[in-house]
Amino acid sequence: MSNVEVGQPFESRRLAHEAGVHRPLQAGICGTKKAGAESIVVSGGYKDDEDYGNVIIYTGHGGQDTSKNQVSDQTLEDAGNAALVTSHLEGLPVRVLRGAHKGSIYAPATGYRYDGLYRVTSYGSKLGIDGFLIWQFRLEAYQDTPVPEVVQQELPELPEIIPVPATGAPPAGAESPERVTTSVQRIVRSTAVTRQVKKWHEGACQICGVMVILPGGAYSEGAHIQALGSPHNGPDTTDNVLCLCPTCHVMFDGGAIVLTDDLTIMRNGTESGTLRTHPQHTINLACVAKHRNRWRQ
Amino acid sequence: MSNVEVGQPFESRRLAHEAGVHRPLQAGICGTKKAGAESIVVSGGYKDDEDYGNVIIYTGHGGQDTSKNQVSDQTLEDAGNAALVTSHLEGLPVRVLRGAHKGSIYAPATGYRYDGLYRVTSYGSKLGIDGFLIWQFRLEAYQDTPVPEVVQQELPELPEIIPVPATGAPPAGAESPERVTTSVQRIVRSTAVTRQVKKWHEGACQICGVMVILPGGAYSEGAHIQALGSPHNGPDTTDNVLCLCPTCHVMFDGGAIVLTDDLTIMRNGTESGTLRTHPQHTINLACVAKHRNRWRQ
Repeated sequence: MSNVEVGQPFESRRLAHEAGVHRPLQAGICGTKKAGAESIVVSGGYKDDEDYGNVIIYTGHGGQDTSKNQVSDQTLEDAGNAALVTSHLEGLPVRVLRGAHKGSIYAPATGYRYDGLYRVTSYGSKLGIDGFLIWQFRLEAYQDTPVPEVVQQELPELPEIIPVPATGAPPAGAESPERVTTSVQRIVRSTAVTRQVKKWHEGACQICGVMVILPGGAYSEGAHIQALGSPHNGPDTTDNVLCLCPTCHVMFDGGAIVLTDDLTIMRNGTESGTLRTHPQHTINLACVAKHRNRWRQ
Repeated sequence: MSNVEVGQPFESRRLAHEAGVHRPLQAGICGTKKAGAESIVVSGGYKDDEDYGNVIIYTGHGGQDTSKNQVSDQTLEDAGNAALVTSHLEGLPVRVLRGAHKGSIYAPATGYRYDGLYRVTSYGSKLGIDGFLIWQFRLEAYQDTPVPEVVQQELPELPEIIPVPATGAPPAGAESPERVTTSVQRIVRSTAVTRQVKKWHEGACQICGVMVILPGGAYSEGAHIQALGSPHNGPDTTDNVLCLCPTCHVMFDGGAIVLTDDLTIMRNGTESGTLRTHPQHTINLACVAKHRNRWRQ
């Protein structure tokens, strides 16, 4: 991988394999649950994929017949899918190789192209076009990974893009400690919507009740129930936002906590009290259901 | 502020005031604890300031005599300092106006210059050059705020820079919801150092003992005791890293939790058990003291 540049073309999977860009000759995901995914191939193999250039909605592995129809549910036990989850949890970069295929204006015209490093910023399950459960991963290009050139004129409508940091895009596995100043960077963004929700609850977590008091003031986080951005596309409204502590936020976003329609808190499948509410704070039950479904519950 | 561009010069504070860039005519910080800081002036008024262009170590307000010597301690009760804390906690952008002064190659040669929006990424206290307590705020330029042009040839050694996101730098107060996809964005970065520490503790929080289990696996965060990057400059070594849950991480980074030299956990000044340890995981007590001192404890 030492001499490969972003944008470099490869005539075949074999050549990409020899260059170390994507080692398997057939599998779309290279990696293990333990180490994370080191590379993926985006080549139109799954009809639920969506490619927006610097954002890719990538369908996980498994459940297809030989005609690329989904004939059974995908699972997170699949090694490739588990690898992408690890990449998300550990914040590891994933190399993206795009292959020529119809339906993506970002695909190369022929062969394959190395398109740089992406982060897995969220994941979840849904019913795919063929009616079976699929797992999808949202990948976002590192800031300094150039978006592949587009030859066609017309651009598709872009999904909302979470800004990504200019990390200097270290190759998978290599560390560049001189630029790493924190292992978890929280970028808090206050909006009128989240401020209103926090105000109603005075900063107390609606799940565990904890109020985080810092020397400078109370700290809480506005958490979207149905996540924003593709593939989730939740609304940015107060009835889709909870006031949570950082830990419950991570657990809620990661599917360890879901809510029932009567706002019972389910922790990894076990009842654990009721969501704290406020008379002015309506909760959108359709969003609650979407979040629950995303985690197969 | 509607017609002001990044890089625009102002001959005087009065003209910057009239343009709405920085409203007060004398105070260096414009803002309130409730609303946050809307703008600051960087003009060499405090000798502990450090200016690295897209990173500024900005000394808070107060405690000076008329010759700009520090003669008493600064406090977070000061309205300007409290405003900058709110900007940090709420993730609000701050306008930066640089004034001509010696000692910064990023200052304009004469008058003032609007240098765009910055985020307050951390803060803490220390003994200043004059021997009194000062509060310092680390400000980082939004990705698309150009670094001011430097006329001199020689660059100072830069501090480690936390990458900042390309958020489209909304003006203070204005929201651009079409680009905001989450109110708290966690960018997790795994390094050999944090992975080792998490492994020792099997993902359990060293402060509260919680283990966050997500469907994809355990989730914990590597937290630096003495923060990395200027003005803290802690080492990126396992003896300076704790394995924490997200909430304890926020509380530790925000000074609500500090450790004594015998690793007693102090929560807002009250003893609260002892840090969980592991025989292989040495804790650097010098870093523990630096973190404690940062929070005046």
